[in-house]
Amino acid sequence: MSTQKKKNAFYAQSGGVTAVINASACGVIETARKNKHKIGKVYAGRNGIIGALTEDLIDTGKESARAISSLRHTPSGAFGSCRFKLKSLEDNKREYERLIDVFEAHNIGYFFYNGGGDSADTCLKVSRLSRNMGYPIQAIHIPKTVDNDLPVTDNCPGFGSVAKYIAISTLEASYDVASMCATSTKIFVLEVMGRHTGWIAAAGAMAADKDNGIPVVVLFPEIKFRQKKFLQTVKDRVKKYGYCSVIVSEGAQWPDGRFLAEQGARDAFGHAQLGGAAPVVANMIHESLGYKFHWAVADYLQRAARHIASATDVNQAYAMGKAAVEFAVAGKNSIMPTIKRTSNKPYKWTIGSTKLSRVANVEKMMPASFISKDGFGITQRCRTYMEPLMRGEDYPPYHRNGLPKYIRFKNVAVLKKLEGFKG
Amino acid sequence: MSTQKKKNAFYAQSGGVTAVINASACGVIETARKNKHKIGKVYAGRNGIIGALTEDLIDTGKESARAISSLRHTPSGAFGSCRFKLKSLEDNKREYERLIDVFEAHNIGYFFYNGGGDSADTCLKVSRLSRNMGYPIQAIHIPKTVDNDLPVTDNCPGFGSVAKYIAISTLEASYDVASMCATSTKIFVLEVMGRHTGWIAAAGAMAADKDNGIPVVVLFPEIKFRQKKFLQTVKDRVKKYGYCSVIVSEGAQWPDGRFLAEQGARDAFGHAQLGGAAPVVANMIHESLGYKFHWAVADYLQRAARHIASATDVNQAYAMGKAAVEFAVAGKNSIMPTIKRTSNKPYKWTIGSTKLSRVANVEKMMPASFISKDGFGITQRCRTYMEPLMRGEDYPPYHRNGLPKYIRFKNVAVLKKLEGFKG
Repeated sequence: MSTQKKKNAFYAQSGGVTAVINASACGVIETARKNKHKIGKVYAGRNGIIGALTEDLIDTGKESARAISSLRHTPSGAFGSCRFKLKSLEDNKREYERLIDVFEAHNIGYFFYNGGGDSADTCLKVSRLSRNMGYPIQAIHIPKTVDNDLPVTDNCPGFGSVAKYIAISTLEASYDVASMCATSTKIFVLEVMGRHTGWIAAAGAMAADKDNGIPVVVLFPEIKFRQKKFLQTVKDRVKKYGYCSVIVSEGAQWPDGRFLAEQGARDAFGHAQLGGAAPVVANMIHESLGYKFHWAVADYLQRAARHIASATDVNQAYAMGKAAVEFAVAGKNSIMPTIKRTSNKPYKWTIGSTKLSRVANVEKMMPASFISKDGFGITQRCRTYMEPLMRGEDYPPYHRNGLPKYIRFKNVAVLKKLEGFKG
Repeated sequence: MSTQKKKNAFYAQSGGVTAVINASACGVIETARKNKHKIGKVYAGRNGIIGALTEDLIDTGKESARAISSLRHTPSGAFGSCRFKLKSLEDNKREYERLIDVFEAHNIGYFFYNGGGDSADTCLKVSRLSRNMGYPIQAIHIPKTVDNDLPVTDNCPGFGSVAKYIAISTLEASYDVASMCATSTKIFVLEVMGRHTGWIAAAGAMAADKDNGIPVVVLFPEIKFRQKKFLQTVKDRVKKYGYCSVIVSEGAQWPDGRFLAEQGARDAFGHAQLGGAAPVVANMIHESLGYKFHWAVADYLQRAARHIASATDVNQAYAMGKAAVEFAVAGKNSIMPTIKRTSNKPYKWTIGSTKLSRVANVEKMMPASFISKDGFGITQRCRTYMEPLMRGEDYPPYHRNGLPKYIRFKNVAVLKKLEGFKG
């Protein structure tokens, strides 16, 4: 077993980060360290694929085992993420040549890319470097997205935690409004992420169950907004319960395709889209029905909320990172590990895999069977799907000042061997 | 010891609810149950003092010991709250006569009111019923406010938990922006509560410490907004750190006294104040400096977030409820239990008390010594004050569906003995 044959690995994070993407990084690095006969160093790309293009690599070997294990409970992207998509080989061959130069200079034979649908496309392109340009590399994609919109896999790491956060936040705020509604606020509107799919919005409806009888009305991006029916529904709920909670997806749209968030709001300079969808919906209810309202926009808080991450989600995020390395060691290329649900009661899952070509740029929508007939809620089928993903608490350790002990790496750069890249 | 001499107690919740006001209710009811020689039933007012005026009482004796103990980990007001202030005796004598009728009809001799400065005024007025109208009653106020603006007491139950939530949320979102800033979002703006005082906004600055080097800029209501200086500060932070988090209080104001939230935004009907302060600040930064931004408005989520309540806060909220009953049993009237800090390192506190006349309608502002010289941050003195209040986690139990086990009472009404009140 000569060190000559051992290849180094490149790992990078891509797209919007999540509460558990670092748990995947933890799975990658810890598993690579257990496979030293096959994998040499693990270099992380600073700011995703950009770190590869600019030869800005971080040697994760400089971090202790304890520091790496802290990644498991630290939100966000420890090495920096990016919003950047490789062009096709025809459109920008220089980018690919550059990647090969960097990989070659640092003896990189494994490429792990941790992201959503767009990032899977980047990973797919890299996985074809062997075939198209003769550079031997194994590229494995590690699924990550709060939007839960990757195909093939039953669910995506990142989603369970944001779902748990939104469901708990909706529950807590609904309790609050219920306390105030006799003499004050009757409407609470919460805006959540999910520009194209309503997976996260559906989580708001999970706050209500048959025991607590909380009235939640959901506005999904999948269903065009019907103002009259919506206002009537809200009115009915307030009459029955005294109050109503509304979850509006940032992607909720008017019948003509405009986002609700675009509706009317102008700043002092006359620019549109100052506010979000929540204030639009809240003001609309106030104008029509006269109810006092409060509204919140969760934005980054929802996807960064590691303090209340789902234990299922953390475990799966770690498992996907681990599986990616194991697949690489087994000689695989151009695949993504997946989560396969084998049973609902009790919830059981195993690890599968799929070809990257089946994942790249494909968006999985909410099944119609998950949305209730009136279009404002979810079905039992949706609940059965969501519950185990939100199950369990995986609390980070805390400092005495009341804040979680999240790790921050120094991320010292590996010495460059090449000249700068002018993409 | 005859039951004739035993008086019943009235307990009610008032004003905006918090993550821990029910912990005070728990302290009241559990302590009253231990003092059965003095206190008969504990009636809760449905929706605060309104429950007394309308004779809408809830017999908490119908709830099991286990259910009552669940109040300790359930956010919001279990019996409903209200925004309602008693007029003066001169202005509305009928209200006071009605209160006496209801108290007499239900043999009520103890009045516990759980609220902030306005509610303390109501409690003070009730405490004078003995002197002014010859009805013997002992009225004790139990402090509660996320705004932390009650005088005399070192801090207010409700504040520690909202501070912990805002500090953690700022920390988590800042980690997120730090991951994205190389190619995408550079600014994160979070709007927090506190219309008159910056206590909650200050909590955002607690996310940054010398170890993690997170750049946080705070806009306090105490300091008039200086646009030029603010933008320059944000620009400097982005240059140094690559990104910047901004915490804006809902009460932040322009030099002329207008709220930032009022700035410019108009809905389709031309009405002002559609959005909050966060989108105004975020857009202002974008207009001037060109940075990509995200913004969030925490609203009710912050004050309802029992899932990440501070252990110090929960303990103190319970202790205030317990102390109120003990003071009542000891024959006190027209007072409020207070939290007295006796040591910072280690943090120690005891229970004191103060006359209600010193509390009613008095607002405690942030000391100037807590705000940093540039006006955009906090001092070490502020940190020393805040840290122990945010210390410790007091997690609720969870269901298998991933949601906390918050209790919901049936709140069955006590049979009315009087005719309806037409105030």
